[in-house]
Amino acid sequence: MTTIGIDLGGTKVLAAVVEDGTVGATRKRPTPSEGPEAVAAAIADLVAELGGADRLGVGAPGQVRPDGVMTGAPNLAGFGHRDVPLARLIADATGIDAVRVDNDVNVGALGEQAAGAAKGRRDVLCVFMGTGVGGGLVLDGHLRQGPHGVAGEIGHASFRPGGRRCGCGGEGHVEAYAGRVAMEAEARRRHAAGEATALVELAGDRAMKSKTWATARAGGDPVAVSLLDEAVEAVATGIASAVMVLDLELIVLGGGLVEKLGDPFVASVDEAVRARLFPGSATTVVIAALGDHAGVIGAARLAESD
Amino acid sequence: MTTIGIDLGGTKVLAAVVEDGTVGATRKRPTPSEGPEAVAAAIADLVAELGGADRLGVGAPGQVRPDGVMTGAPNLAGFGHRDVPLARLIADATGIDAVRVDNDVNVGALGEQAAGAAKGRRDVLCVFMGTGVGGGLVLDGHLRQGPHGVAGEIGHASFRPGGRRCGCGGEGHVEAYAGRVAMEAEARRRHAAGEATALVELAGDRAMKSKTWATARAGGDPVAVSLLDEAVEAVATGIASAVMVLDLELIVLGGGLVEKLGDPFVASVDEAVRARLFPGSATTVVIAALGDHAGVIGAARLAESD
Repeated sequence: MTTIGIDLGGTKVLAAVVEDGTVGATRKRPTPSEGPEAVAAAIADLVAELGGADRLGVGAPGQVRPDGVMTGAPNLAGFGHRDVPLARLIADATGIDAVRVDNDVNVGALGEQAAGAAKGRRDVLCVFMGTGVGGGLVLDGHLRQGPHGVAGEIGHASFRPGGRRCGCGGEGHVEAYAGRVAMEAEARRRHAAGEATALVELAGDRAMKSKTWATARAGGDPVAVSLLDEAVEAVATGIASAVMVLDLELIVLGGGLVEKLGDPFVASVDEAVRARLFPGSATTVVIAALGDHAGVIGAARLAESD
Repeated sequence: MTTIGIDLGGTKVLAAVVEDGTVGATRKRPTPSEGPEAVAAAIADLVAELGGADRLGVGAPGQVRPDGVMTGAPNLAGFGHRDVPLARLIADATGIDAVRVDNDVNVGALGEQAAGAAKGRRDVLCVFMGTGVGGGLVLDGHLRQGPHGVAGEIGHASFRPGGRRCGCGGEGHVEAYAGRVAMEAEARRRHAAGEATALVELAGDRAMKSKTWATARAGGDPVAVSLLDEAVEAVATGIASAVMVLDLELIVLGGGLVEKLGDPFVASVDEAVRARLFPGSATTVVIAALGDHAGVIGAARLAESD
């Protein structure tokens, strides 16, 4: 039984043969911009190049219902705002019946649980910090999807009610303080208000990348330090509430920002989470282990699950 | 197959024959203060008075591991701080093998899901506001217990990091703002600092009951209004974070404080929760339906579950 995991991103599609959580042969190509059918055809080509498969799992950037229909994909050109039956389109294009599609963050969480930092654990909350803050929740070995397929949205947990407006329109959500886009907006606001910051010197007019934040923080830049400290508080608050409601022992922290900031950042989140739990709690926050391979490994795991 | 549900409280034990979520014959007696064996014997007497049963479910006030061992029961005289194998003691005393024990709040949530405000729903978070703030979580029709049996602890979700000290020793938890004991402490602190409040006039030196709060609020007492508004914010923050992480559609709110404050209070929590979710979210907060019977109905449901 051959399983191929596919990481469908906004700029590229990565496909890999995965066996027992280990990545074998891989193929990739740019993500077509002509819409869902073109994406399905590209996936079919990649699968053929890899010699075919019995099962396919796909992680896709957007909201996916449990039946494999995408209901929102702002980062996929040509997908628009309509519902896209992506699982069925891929099944038609490849001739493979067993196709499972889920949100890329959920799939990344499954990957970390199958073969990464949470290997062998029944329960884990994975939190990925990048442009935004996403999360995926595995309970009793199964992905929690929820009736609308939006479980795990730790980025939209409450941090400061009435506080900063979030990209989703809500107020005071974790992502409004711990997502890179929101943090950049605040850094530029402070810069415009007269605060000097290496962040703007480093980035210029281009977007502040994770590496920009890491460099500025390492140099002791006060705005970077202050905003990253606030990001730690925000993400720890969301995580701690999830731990209390679910009795979780392990949190995996990953994503571009975490990769660049590394273990000291994860340790600071761990400390801030503990400060919010019952004194003596054994819950720990650890760094993600799979990096760019979490997507294809998790997608393969998704294909193998009931 | 006869099922008896037992609500073991700090002052009384209530036992009921329950069939299809409906309470039949009931018996009660004061909770013995001589310790676990005496409690098990009292339960055996109640079961015998009701004509015996094939299965027993028990809701108990404290921390219960999935194997039916109580690891903390501050409100049961004679239980002390040691582990008590309550399920086994009750099985020995009654001669019934099928005995399940869980925390009373979890059991109340099962009751509301089996036959109350969440009847027919797969997922529900029940939040009970009384002396403290407790919660029970049902996911896919099963109680979420967690590896330490402490899932559902919405009262200890983060509200104001660094804020008021909680009874558990943590800081800024929901319960420190929305539990009656914590709210009374703050009301008395304000009174001592010179703020006039009907709460102290009504309660005198005795504990402020839920009815005291309802009366003072109805009269427009500024301290009662301010603290109850803050309680709404606190509990809504914890609930909203749980909804975001789990994709929940229904929250049931109950407990002594909610019963006395009624529908307008529940509506204010509902509104505050929505303000924290994605705009347009369909999640609703409704009032609990079973009152004092949630315990025995939920205990019977627990006995019937896998």
